[in-house]
Amino acid sequence: MSDQPLVIFTPSGKRGRVARGTTVLDAARRLGVDLDSVCGGRGICSKCQVAPQQGRFEKHGITVGPEALSDWNAVEARYDEKRGLKPGRRLGCQAQIQGDMLIDVPPESQVHRQVVRKAASARAITMDPVTRLHFVEVAEPDMHEPTGDLERLSAALARDWGLDGVRLAPALRPGLQSTLRRANWRVTAAVATPREGAAPVITALFPGLHEGGLYGLAIDLGSTTIAAHLTDLETGQVIASSGIMNPQIRFGEDLMSRVSYAMMTEGGAAEMTGAVREAIDTLVPEIAAEAGIAVETILEVVFVCNPVMHHLLLGLDPVELGQAPFALATSSEIETDAGALGLAALPPSAQIYLLPCIAGHVGADAAAVALSEAPQLSDDLVLIVDVGTNAEILLGDRSRVLACSSPTGPAFEGAQISSGQRAAPGAIEAIRIDPETRAPRFRVIGSDLWSDEPGFAEAVRTTGVTGICGSGIIEAVAELRIAGLMDESGLIGSAEQTGSERCVPDGRTHSYVVHDGTAEGGPLITVTQNDIRAIQLAKSALYAGARLLMDERGVDTVDRVVLAGAFGAHISPLHAMVLGMIPDVALDKVTSAGNAAGTGARIALCSRAARRGIEAEVRRITKVETAIEPRFQEHFVAANAIPHKTDPFPHLTQHVSLPDVAFGATGSRDGGRRRRRR
Amino acid sequence: MSDQPLVIFTPSGKRGRVARGTTVLDAARRLGVDLDSVCGGRGICSKCQVAPQQGRFEKHGITVGPEALSDWNAVEARYDEKRGLKPGRRLGCQAQIQGDMLIDVPPESQVHRQVVRKAASARAITMDPVTRLHFVEVAEPDMHEPTGDLERLSAALARDWGLDGVRLAPALRPGLQSTLRRANWRVTAAVATPREGAAPVITALFPGLHEGGLYGLAIDLGSTTIAAHLTDLETGQVIASSGIMNPQIRFGEDLMSRVSYAMMTEGGAAEMTGAVREAIDTLVPEIAAEAGIAVETILEVVFVCNPVMHHLLLGLDPVELGQAPFALATSSEIETDAGALGLAALPPSAQIYLLPCIAGHVGADAAAVALSEAPQLSDDLVLIVDVGTNAEILLGDRSRVLACSSPTGPAFEGAQISSGQRAAPGAIEAIRIDPETRAPRFRVIGSDLWSDEPGFAEAVRTTGVTGICGSGIIEAVAELRIAGLMDESGLIGSAEQTGSERCVPDGRTHSYVVHDGTAEGGPLITVTQNDIRAIQLAKSALYAGARLLMDERGVDTVDRVVLAGAFGAHISPLHAMVLGMIPDVALDKVTSAGNAAGTGARIALCSRAARRGIEAEVRRITKVETAIEPRFQEHFVAANAIPHKTDPFPHLTQHVSLPDVAFGATGSRDGGRRRRRR
Repeated sequence: MSDQPLVIFTPSGKRGRVARGTTVLDAARRLGVDLDSVCGGRGICSKCQVAPQQGRFEKHGITVGPEALSDWNAVEARYDEKRGLKPGRRLGCQAQIQGDMLIDVPPESQVHRQVVRKAASARAITMDPVTRLHFVEVAEPDMHEPTGDLERLSAALARDWGLDGVRLAPALRPGLQSTLRRANWRVTAAVATPREGAAPVITALFPGLHEGGLYGLAIDLGSTTIAAHLTDLETGQVIASSGIMNPQIRFGEDLMSRVSYAMMTEGGAAEMTGAVREAIDTLVPEIAAEAGIAVETILEVVFVCNPVMHHLLLGLDPVELGQAPFALATSSEIETDAGALGLAALPPSAQIYLLPCIAGHVGADAAAVALSEAPQLSDDLVLIVDVGTNAEILLGDRSRVLACSSPTGPAFEGAQISSGQRAAPGAIEAIRIDPETRAPRFRVIGSDLWSDEPGFAEAVRTTGVTGICGSGIIEAVAELRIAGLMDESGLIGSAEQTGSERCVPDGRTHSYVVHDGTAEGGPLITVTQNDIRAIQLAKSALYAGARLLMDERGVDTVDRVVLAGAFGAHISPLHAMVLGMIPDVALDKVTSAGNAAGTGARIALCSRAARRGIEAEVRRITKVETAIEPRFQEHFVAANAIPHKTDPFPHLTQHVSLPDVAFGATGSRDGGRRRRRR
Repeated sequence: MSDQPLVIFTPSGKRGRVARGTTVLDAARRLGVDLDSVCGGRGICSKCQVAPQQGRFEKHGITVGPEALSDWNAVEARYDEKRGLKPGRRLGCQAQIQGDMLIDVPPESQVHRQVVRKAASARAITMDPVTRLHFVEVAEPDMHEPTGDLERLSAALARDWGLDGVRLAPALRPGLQSTLRRANWRVTAAVATPREGAAPVITALFPGLHEGGLYGLAIDLGSTTIAAHLTDLETGQVIASSGIMNPQIRFGEDLMSRVSYAMMTEGGAAEMTGAVREAIDTLVPEIAAEAGIAVETILEVVFVCNPVMHHLLLGLDPVELGQAPFALATSSEIETDAGALGLAALPPSAQIYLLPCIAGHVGADAAAVALSEAPQLSDDLVLIVDVGTNAEILLGDRSRVLACSSPTGPAFEGAQISSGQRAAPGAIEAIRIDPETRAPRFRVIGSDLWSDEPGFAEAVRTTGVTGICGSGIIEAVAELRIAGLMDESGLIGSAEQTGSERCVPDGRTHSYVVHDGTAEGGPLITVTQNDIRAIQLAKSALYAGARLLMDERGVDTVDRVVLAGAFGAHISPLHAMVLGMIPDVALDKVTSAGNAAGTGARIALCSRAARRGIEAEVRRITKVETAIEPRFQEHFVAANAIPHKTDPFPHLTQHVSLPDVAFGATGSRDGGRRRRRR
């Protein structure tokens, strides 16, 4: 038997010769193989589990005999007895190499394991979080070598884990001595290294070998809702999600009214800062309880948010964001900790990261969308719209990425709509209008049945039909257009003009009755002329923003469109295009990215490399300011027509023909004439 | 005239050729000459003032004509008119080099000017503080290049001052935007770079060109008093000093009783932390007011203190310091800021530095003494004793330095002495006993007259004679020994034994009457047998500590002795040696270092290099723990005799002969016999 057996690790394929008797863990470290360990080779954490292989491996040119690895030892036996080892597994820190060996490192034993983010794009994230756990046995104090407890803890981390110059988060100083003594000098340190080369910081100390996990929160701090995803920092998996309303709503529904509140009210900004921090302090214990983990194990948080929320979270007055030139106090990424941010529910040393802002109107949320959707890596020209109260819009490909935001207002979210409501059970989320009968059928959140299907009444008994949410109103307006009940200018025709009893007079205009629940004590749900105006304003702003970026890029079409935002997931691409929210493109080229900002936050939580990447990318992005661009107004006006006054929609018309109707300024004045134009 | 004139700078001697028309400031920068500037060449700060020379300079081999420098320009004229320029001075950023030139840089224009610390040792400190001022004009926000205000401020600091990767202290974030706008984008940034290569941090922003100076506090945080020295961070000069009592005294006079308080009282440590921080918050505005400067300009603080005060200041429970193995929570230097330390009176971003602790009983104050007195640079073997409630003792030379502390108790400070008091007006600070008449004469603080000189009564009329302070009691005991009124064992003889009426019975022992002020309603000031016992305990502990270090070093004598501590300055070397506080050494080899710990703090305030130096030196120092060393007890017992039971004092006996008297256990039992021994 060779004194220097050959060891091959899969899946990496790394290979080399090591001295006989070397443990698999040591061999892996020497050969640069990614094999995890928290306990540092003491056989207690089992993170270094490997699957040794036997037999003849032609591909690798070796034969592995049964003697190639040392026998199962007492440490492994004890671990197996207490915790159980999967069949065929060995503890890498115990099993010693005795002969040529092929060793498979299963994914769960890799530090930098890959997390495949989603099936569609199959982009993999390599786990590389800021914080890692390290078990150490600290030397006890000795009067003859009177270093401090911290210095001996640091020495242990340097010796066992190669962590040099470790500092202790100040908040841990008061408890250091008692923790070390209570733990009998055996502790697991959570060590944060926010950047390669930065001094590592101990952000938590757990007595003994910590087995309670390590978690991070990806928080999407929206104007209306605050959504948090609790993420396992070892696997990258989301283990719980939770959301609450942003309590700042009481200071103003939209961002500009909150800026006004800060401007007009002494201490108003501080009041809003307090409100949002309190909301996070409410959310944190809730989500931890839901997941059944200890809050003390949440040691990282990534925030994505628009610039106003960014400033208010940081305790900065957002007043400059309300007036040209919309100067951010700071645009770079922010690295801080929960204590400094006044978040009392989190461990004070929990590391906080805010993605960089792109511009005064294009925030860290847009940066997170860019991180998630990576337009800079796209071979074709992609338009990404994150639909919310403000729309963030990105356009680009490998050569260049442009960004702007556009003030769509809250109509797309069901606000400012007569029967509008949040997306919640009972809300109409989809509508179809029969082109012949011009009668609607619809689906409400909480049921898969259409309203004309048997059992619908039973299915909605508990919730009722309560209103129309964002995706519902978009479909309703688009369907009205397809059915010829509303003309290109957005006017709903009268019953006489349209031949539909559903078109009822409503003051000087008409409304379309979607659902009359009054007989059962429910609401009368209509789409009013004002609703359509609100949707027109929103979609024109969105389209004009996209068009401005296309001008800047010098194109009239894009190759594909990605709809992002929690709400984007529910938009029907056909209806969005009928409405003219997005430029014309082949329907199968419109995809939904779901909550791309939240996904970007999760990626930043899992990967330092991703953080560095988006920080650099944000500096490269070309920022376009809609507020000062005269063409924005022109585009806005032209986009008021449904789908558009001048821009052609050739792909759309392959799927649907839009009746060429015009109902005049008002149904009554125009004498009820329904005409075919041209 | 050459297109590349030769420029020579004095006193550095640096020389080189520069393009004609180069400003003196630019030439200095290119040639690596240390020439200050705060305004960055805008002609408004005048820090770059130089003294151009004319004539023939044989030594430098050049002749400088009147045309060698550009004419006085409008900027210089305006500055001279508004502020005045010394005759012969020019502004380095305005004057342009036209021909061969010799330019003297006066000390006040050097960034790294030298501060000669004291005449005796003539050690110079090169100014190299953590914080420096930099004036910048920040680019205004621009919608087309939407970076944040901070990023534009950072860019200006990078462009004008070569400061890369500047961060903003979080406490300044909320005020950043308003300060920049109020200052019309012209600000002076105080930038702290605690270590070479560390990311610079903006710790204050002053509108316009800041002319209010930049200050640091060197704080000696003693068990009994807190002394602060306000230091100009440009010149290194102390501009005000102030001290207050440490309010922790109410929790215990000495350190161990404070540790007990922390141990026995729930929340006791936090209570003491609060007390000391409050005291500093009281001290800061007082000293600023005394110096007539704004608290906002105090941007650095260095603390030196013993380990218990160190922990209490940091908010750490000192309980481990009260029991073997006396483990410090942390022994390394601490870099933090005023906000993190809960010091509300200082700007929250003010940089705080605590010197490292040497061991559980040998604190940052001892490190500061080592920094000030630099035993590691001494060619001869020096013993440094910092006399206080605890004595810190250092012994060493270039080859090796040893350190220990010794629990002397407060007797040397006048506490636990029957007529003892703090060093304050009215306290006896010096005593001489006539060897013939055995009558005392003395001097009190507040007067230069001896008590037997004409006018003394008048001189002390306002204060009276109130008690004896530390130096007074040491002299009193030593004089009693010299006069033969007290024997080697420390016993005061009776009037019969000594032949002095001043030796009066006091229970079973005798006291020596120093001053009877009862006729005037004042106190009867005596030295009692108990006083002598207290002094004996204190001096034995001090001597035993020194002797332990000498053992460890393998020597029986030292080359010189330095008495440090505020109180050390007032000790008479002769009397200290008669008492046997310090080992025998030639009297002219005993010097006082004054408040060496405070001086060390000031050096650390002025020089980053000094900080790095003492941090490294502290790791090299050999720590000796008196509490566990059996020989300490032996040395302690042997040192009880005055001056010493066994150790010879050959140098001392050249100056004074100590009567060989013995008064027995008590005057009464020994039958009043006065004998000459051997």
